[in-house]
Amino acid sequence: MTTPLPIGSTIGILGGGQLGRMLSVAASRLGFRTVIFEPGADCPASHVAQAHIQASYEDAAALRRFAERVDVITYEFENIPTSALDILEALRPIHPNREALRISQDRLTEKTFLSNLGLTTAPFADIPDAAALDGALQTIGTPSILKTRRFGYDGKGQARLSSPREAAQAFSDMNGAPAILEGFVDFSLEVSIIAARSQDGQVSAYDPGENVHEGGILRTTTVPAKIPARLQTDAVLLAAKILNALEYVGVMGVELFVTPTALIVNEIAPRVHNSGHWTQNGCTVDQFEQHIRAVAGWPLGNGERHSDVTMANLIGDDMDRVPALAQDGACALHLYGKAEVKPGRKMGHVNRVTD
Amino acid sequence: MTTPLPIGSTIGILGGGQLGRMLSVAASRLGFRTVIFEPGADCPASHVAQAHIQASYEDAAALRRFAERVDVITYEFENIPTSALDILEALRPIHPNREALRISQDRLTEKTFLSNLGLTTAPFADIPDAAALDGALQTIGTPSILKTRRFGYDGKGQARLSSPREAAQAFSDMNGAPAILEGFVDFSLEVSIIAARSQDGQVSAYDPGENVHEGGILRTTTVPAKIPARLQTDAVLLAAKILNALEYVGVMGVELFVTPTALIVNEIAPRVHNSGHWTQNGCTVDQFEQHIRAVAGWPLGNGERHSDVTMANLIGDDMDRVPALAQDGACALHLYGKAEVKPGRKMGHVNRVTD
Repeated sequence: MTTPLPIGSTIGILGGGQLGRMLSVAASRLGFRTVIFEPGADCPASHVAQAHIQASYEDAAALRRFAERVDVITYEFENIPTSALDILEALRPIHPNREALRISQDRLTEKTFLSNLGLTTAPFADIPDAAALDGALQTIGTPSILKTRRFGYDGKGQARLSSPREAAQAFSDMNGAPAILEGFVDFSLEVSIIAARSQDGQVSAYDPGENVHEGGILRTTTVPAKIPARLQTDAVLLAAKILNALEYVGVMGVELFVTPTALIVNEIAPRVHNSGHWTQNGCTVDQFEQHIRAVAGWPLGNGERHSDVTMANLIGDDMDRVPALAQDGACALHLYGKAEVKPGRKMGHVNRVTD
Repeated sequence: MTTPLPIGSTIGILGGGQLGRMLSVAASRLGFRTVIFEPGADCPASHVAQAHIQASYEDAAALRRFAERVDVITYEFENIPTSALDILEALRPIHPNREALRISQDRLTEKTFLSNLGLTTAPFADIPDAAALDGALQTIGTPSILKTRRFGYDGKGQARLSSPREAAQAFSDMNGAPAILEGFVDFSLEVSIIAARSQDGQVSAYDPGENVHEGGILRTTTVPAKIPARLQTDAVLLAAKILNALEYVGVMGVELFVTPTALIVNEIAPRVHNSGHWTQNGCTVDQFEQHIRAVAGWPLGNGERHSDVTMANLIGDDMDRVPALAQDGACALHLYGKAEVKPGRKMGHVNRVTD
């Protein structure tokens, strides 16, 4: 049996953005304190945390100071440098574990892992060099998309190929970074499943949410998703399979493409996920508290959906809509306290409770 | 028209207990920062605030430093020294206003105010000296209760009289403090109404909650309260009358005794209230966010009840129940992060969602 983290303990969070902010608030509900490690000044999470250690991930002394102040460590983003993890892991438990990070940090490793689990992914091929791209295009064809294996998100570090003639340009766009070619999937809609696994191996999944992306950025998530009950069950089983295979502890977001015949795993994120923000107004225990419960060795909470919700991100100038949204009785606002509005920047979200 | 406080502004909170903690969390949801003024070290609110100014209410320099760091000031308790308010009010707006504090700080002033509004209170009399007590006992009779006019709560600074022969002892128990004699009310149940008024004069009330006290401490609040619809409406109108009379801005708790014929106002609290904690899991916008919205000059949010809830305080050793409550899917835990469990100390509460 797992010994639960005592009330009053301190949870260290790597990353001080909006996810860290909402994790910190959830931790406070359970009587925990949080310390944030984040290189940026005045980060959103620091406004609601016990302390903020502002230092680079290369600062070994600061990492040690952070670890010594906390009882357990978690994170809000997956691209934590390995050297930092090496230092931290020697001092305190980190959840979710290194294996989940290792796999999700690299698109090729991730797709290989998912395939080996028997799950369906888009067709993919390792592209270590230009010659490999030409070969892969013969089997995967176009349209397809070349992506760096590591980093890159929201459309960055990615090049679409509509014809093999674009191969040279696309390869050059990767700037020499190891890459992966992915075939396009003809999907009817995109859903994600937010699932949690406790230290005792208990697994709980929220209802799948239906996602709409624009320009590579999530715009809305709607629950319930318009998919048959059979696929809902498949999605939950699939997420549980991933969590169990990784002996995962915490919340994971799994993005899926829905085709007429199957669920195709697009990607996994070893953390709370933007497409799970609806749970704040749709469930008694939201994804942030569920993650904290898992990380703290507590039993998972009740993630049943009590309301229908559409979550919409407030990006850049969407903030101009806040005065109107504040007057809309169906809307629950969640703003991140970011000082400056920038185009493309996630400033907050609104959960519209539709039932 | 009121100019709403811009997102990113800082709200100063006087008092760093659990109410300040939950106000701070609510402020973060709307993109605000908070700074806590609290004499005690490591207070619950400081765990989730931007900053904590630890100083006495007699420290004029610290009060000024606090005011200069914030854009608007509110509070979590009503017994703020007048001298501190004088300093703060000269520098920043304070909501709710001084008049609400003046009235609620003194039981005699409060009952007189309520009576003058045409509301029903328990019979009461000013007891400046022992002779006044003898006179008052002739009109009010026994059982009755002698209370200090100021301070005292949860049974402290109060003496019950079951016979006029106990007058001398009861008067002596007041230690010379100005007092008030209150007649007993024969009530069937106790409810409270949590109402908010915005800077524009909009008033919104939550559904009345039914309270159970033990030993002068609130144990549970249940919504819906078992009172007829007519009395629910009366309670809302009565609360609105009080808020409007005070040109009040913020959330107020109004405790009421329900008798077969009427609602009797027991007391008012010019702040968020323990009996309103159920709103965290029963409404889209809870009492804490509603208070922040009012203080910030925002429109009030939707306080409609979407679920039935029983809120139970976790007092002292009730914390031993937390592991079981954490496994109960109907329960939402809210713990205050207090370092030490003490008998009679409010350590947290649990909202049991019953519908």
